[in-house]
Amino acid sequence: MELYIIRHGIAQERSPGISEVERSLTKEGRQKTEKIAKRLHNLAVEFDLILTSPLVRARQTAEILLEHQLSSQLETTDHLTPGGDIYAWLREWWEPQQHPPETSIALVGHEPSLSQWTEILLWGEVKERLVLKKAGIIGLTVPVTGSPVGCAQLFWLTPPKFLL
Amino acid sequence: MELYIIRHGIAQERSPGISEVERSLTKEGRQKTEKIAKRLHNLAVEFDLILTSPLVRARQTAEILLEHQLSSQLETTDHLTPGGDIYAWLREWWEPQQHPPETSIALVGHEPSLSQWTEILLWGEVKERLVLKKAGIIGLTVPVTGSPVGCAQLFWLTPPKFLL
Repeated sequence: MELYIIRHGIAQERSPGISEVERSLTKEGRQKTEKIAKRLHNLAVEFDLILTSPLVRARQTAEILLEHQLSSQLETTDHLTPGGDIYAWLREWWEPQQHPPETSIALVGHEPSLSQWTEILLWGEVKERLVLKKAGIIGLTVPVTGSPVGCAQLFWLTPPKFLL
Repeated sequence: MELYIIRHGIAQERSPGISEVERSLTKEGRQKTEKIAKRLHNLAVEFDLILTSPLVRARQTAEILLEHQLSSQLETTDHLTPGGDIYAWLREWWEPQQHPPETSIALVGHEPSLSQWTEILLWGEVKERLVLKKAGIIGLTVPVTGSPVGCAQLFWLTPPKFLL
């Protein structure tokens, strides 16, 4: 099956007046993310489910993907908040489910967690060797049975500039 | 500096009548590689040097990149033939040179050598976790001093279908 890992678009900077949870996409971030979503749709990329961090900038990114018909299913999970533990997600969300071989799932969240999760799926440990830009995308193939840790294969990693 | 790793386009199948060295790009392989080269040019990708395997299908791929103004320098090296040893290449080609920080070099060659070289540059060993399709591209940032083994970062890996 395919697992797509997508970082939220450009968001408001950290500032004392706004909580970390509430930071939202800027106008530029929204426009760029919409362009990416349109391009993904033209490339026939589709997800059976989008799983997103509940933080506003991630949820807005996921909603843009939904609006561009990349999926019809959106689910929120605290596992995808910054610092979320992939092993807890695998245990509590991934393992209890059946994943048909053709399933395609997108995870929308934050750095550095997303590239750390990817590295754990690829080669079982974090080496900080992947660069995932805002609105960037990673594509993995993952076995449908057994633990995916150290068993995924990377077929795509792109910064948004090469998709626009 | 940037190191781009590019697999040759679709080539003639192996057959008794044609040597491994002489297999050339098919009509489809040539057309697809030309489209990729045009797209790379539009994306402002440029190489100070293209280093290619001497095998016909790789050299033809490198020449298409040259024709589309992605570089003005082409060099052939036996290190990039199938099964070439990255450590020998680093010792004999890479290390004796000064690489200014802004340098961008493209390597054109064959699988599985190219993704093995990439894995060695990324995390120091071969784990067979990368999928590099024909005419696919990998983008790495590499330190200009010291050994790049285990020190590269991956900012791009794309199959041709997401570039066309």
